[in-house]
Amino acid sequence: MDYKKYVADYPDFPEKGIIFRDVSPLLADPRAFNSLLNQMAEAAYDMGDFDTVVGLDARGFVFGAALASRTHCPFIMIRKKGKLPQGDLVEATYDLEYGKATMQMHGTLIKGKKVIIVDDVMATGGTAKAAMDLVEAACGKVVGIITPCELTFLNGRKKIGAVPFASFIKY
Amino acid sequence: MDYKKYVADYPDFPEKGIIFRDVSPLLADPRAFNSLLNQMAEAAYDMGDFDTVVGLDARGFVFGAALASRTHCPFIMIRKKGKLPQGDLVEATYDLEYGKATMQMHGTLIKGKKVIIVDDVMATGGTAKAAMDLVEAACGKVVGIITPCELTFLNGRKKIGAVPFASFIKY
Repeated sequence: MDYKKYVADYPDFPEKGIIFRDVSPLLADPRAFNSLLNQMAEAAYDMGDFDTVVGLDARGFVFGAALASRTHCPFIMIRKKGKLPQGDLVEATYDLEYGKATMQMHGTLIKGKKVIIVDDVMATGGTAKAAMDLVEAACGKVVGIITPCELTFLNGRKKIGAVPFASFIKY
Repeated sequence: MDYKKYVADYPDFPEKGIIFRDVSPLLADPRAFNSLLNQMAEAAYDMGDFDTVVGLDARGFVFGAALASRTHCPFIMIRKKGKLPQGDLVEATYDLEYGKATMQMHGTLIKGKKVIIVDDVMATGGTAKAAMDLVEAACGKVVGIITPCELTFLNGRKKIGAVPFASFIKY
């Protein structure tokens, strides 16, 4: 399916010079959304033996939770700092395409898990790399990373090294 | 299923006097998560003729997107202010259990839709009421509201009036 026609482009959002790729129309079309989830599930199965899906706050929750339910896996959230209650949190600070941020996760839920990391977009790879570090810091194994969209010109794949990666809407 | 044993309680988070109900363990258990999604789907079917699921940023994305995929409906995000690109946005400001916030949504995607609104918790009802207002401002019809958790002592149901409502983990 040609997913690109379900992505709306907004130039100069959230900052001048950046084209925001809005997947709202794709989510609003059940055929496109379910087709994409099928592709994501197939990519995950091809990556090997995984038992957990991790999704990144907030659009990674949309794709990650639906994928976890579809593949009958645990779903674990990586949240922006301050959203998860303290206790067993691990955290990482990272550079975004624009700005900086800190992410947190419940470490005990990840220990020993074989993880597929899901976010909405692979940009510079900074977020994906920080998510990898977080999973590994909590003694989980990263089996692969899946994002619906990829900004190939930002070369994010380079940052994640040899970890299997799949995307389906490339710019 | 007794979902409560999959909810972790954190006293005094995010503010003193509030008990934070963390659904992370529930999401991390595929049987509990899928069972809950079944219950949510049944509740939605019982509410009547709906064709769209709206989820609230950010934990409403987890339950909403999975429910939309399961019921083969469009999924539409209500986001915190500043996350969606301008164009056709409608917005509403509302009181939270702690503090204030503004939510935004693409109006054109909702026009004429029959909507189930999904969030993670019904507290004072302020968020749910603002989401209802937003859907109606964009000429959608609210068929019902579903949240996994409900803080019954905060009486949120009173705020949403006669709109059908379902929750499955009550405090």
